[in-house]
Amino acid sequence: MNIRKADEQKDYDKVWDIFTNVISTGDTYVFDPKTPKEALHKNWFADYMDTFVAVDDNGEILGTYIIKPNQIDLGNHIANCSYMVNPKYHGRGTGKLLCEHSLKFARDKGFLGIQFNIVVSTNENAVKLWQRFGFNIIGTTPKAFRHKTLGLVDTYIMYKDLTTNEQNHNSMII
Amino acid sequence: MNIRKADEQKDYDKVWDIFTNVISTGDTYVFDPKTPKEALHKNWFADYMDTFVAVDDNGEILGTYIIKPNQIDLGNHIANCSYMVNPKYHGRGTGKLLCEHSLKFARDKGFLGIQFNIVVSTNENAVKLWQRFGFNIIGTTPKAFRHKTLGLVDTYIMYKDLTTNEQNHNSMII
Repeated sequence: MNIRKADEQKDYDKVWDIFTNVISTGDTYVFDPKTPKEALHKNWFADYMDTFVAVDDNGEILGTYIIKPNQIDLGNHIANCSYMVNPKYHGRGTGKLLCEHSLKFARDKGFLGIQFNIVVSTNENAVKLWQRFGFNIIGTTPKAFRHKTLGLVDTYIMYKDLTTNEQNHNSMII
Repeated sequence: MNIRKADEQKDYDKVWDIFTNVISTGDTYVFDPKTPKEALHKNWFADYMDTFVAVDDNGEILGTYIIKPNQIDLGNHIANCSYMVNPKYHGRGTGKLLCEHSLKFARDKGFLGIQFNIVVSTNENAVKLWQRFGFNIIGTTPKAFRHKTLGLVDTYIMYKDLTTNEQNHNSMII
């Protein structure tokens, strides 16, 4: 498996397959499960984002992530990322690989930290994964997500400082 | 003084005067102090925002605010607001009036809460004002703002629940 830049023209359909599958459950991402295909451009391929895909040896796309500044201008030194793994290919470590790649890419771009703004609190596997990567819950917004089956649930703001050197730390504890 | 909807065509120049003056100090808002005038459209008059102005009896614009969903789709029941008061007219209670108006407007629109994402921690007057209006600091992002004179400073995420009835509470403690 390796990670490469996504090509909006060539990869649009495959990335859309992942995107629409992942959001269809309405329990992890803020996107409306009925988001139309044409909105993938602004949601996943906007000018101010970098978009990557994880591909296997056959060129199959297993997952994708975006990274962008979390704020404009005087706050654009903190990044924000979203990751999606093709549900068909869970269990291959794609999520971990995407996250590792994003941390390195963010450091190389000069970002000082990464913030997630709306991690659904009931998505415990994701919360645990981010914590293993050194993200901390720095805040909780009450009832900020309309969960498909649970109704209004809390969301977490999570943050990781990129200015400390803990590359080895990450690989040891996962 | 009263509050009315802003008219992008008629009010653009006056709102721009306030906007560029307020951001020029580089110590309270995330906007680059050199933000060009044409960017006011996307920053203050975008389709997904409601924009208001506070005007005095002569029609002079004393301040302005925007309100919009803080997230899209499954998170769009929490609002986000930004307020600016003309530095020439500080001390007239314009900020308080704008905030009171936004709380009522948000409740009327059905928002369940208001979140501020990046309140500069060193902007103590603003923090105290929001706290008096019932906003709580629900998180701190370390060094998330590049302050013009202080360098990297922390920012607060602040939140107010709109589902409890505390209109009287507000007017009592201010």
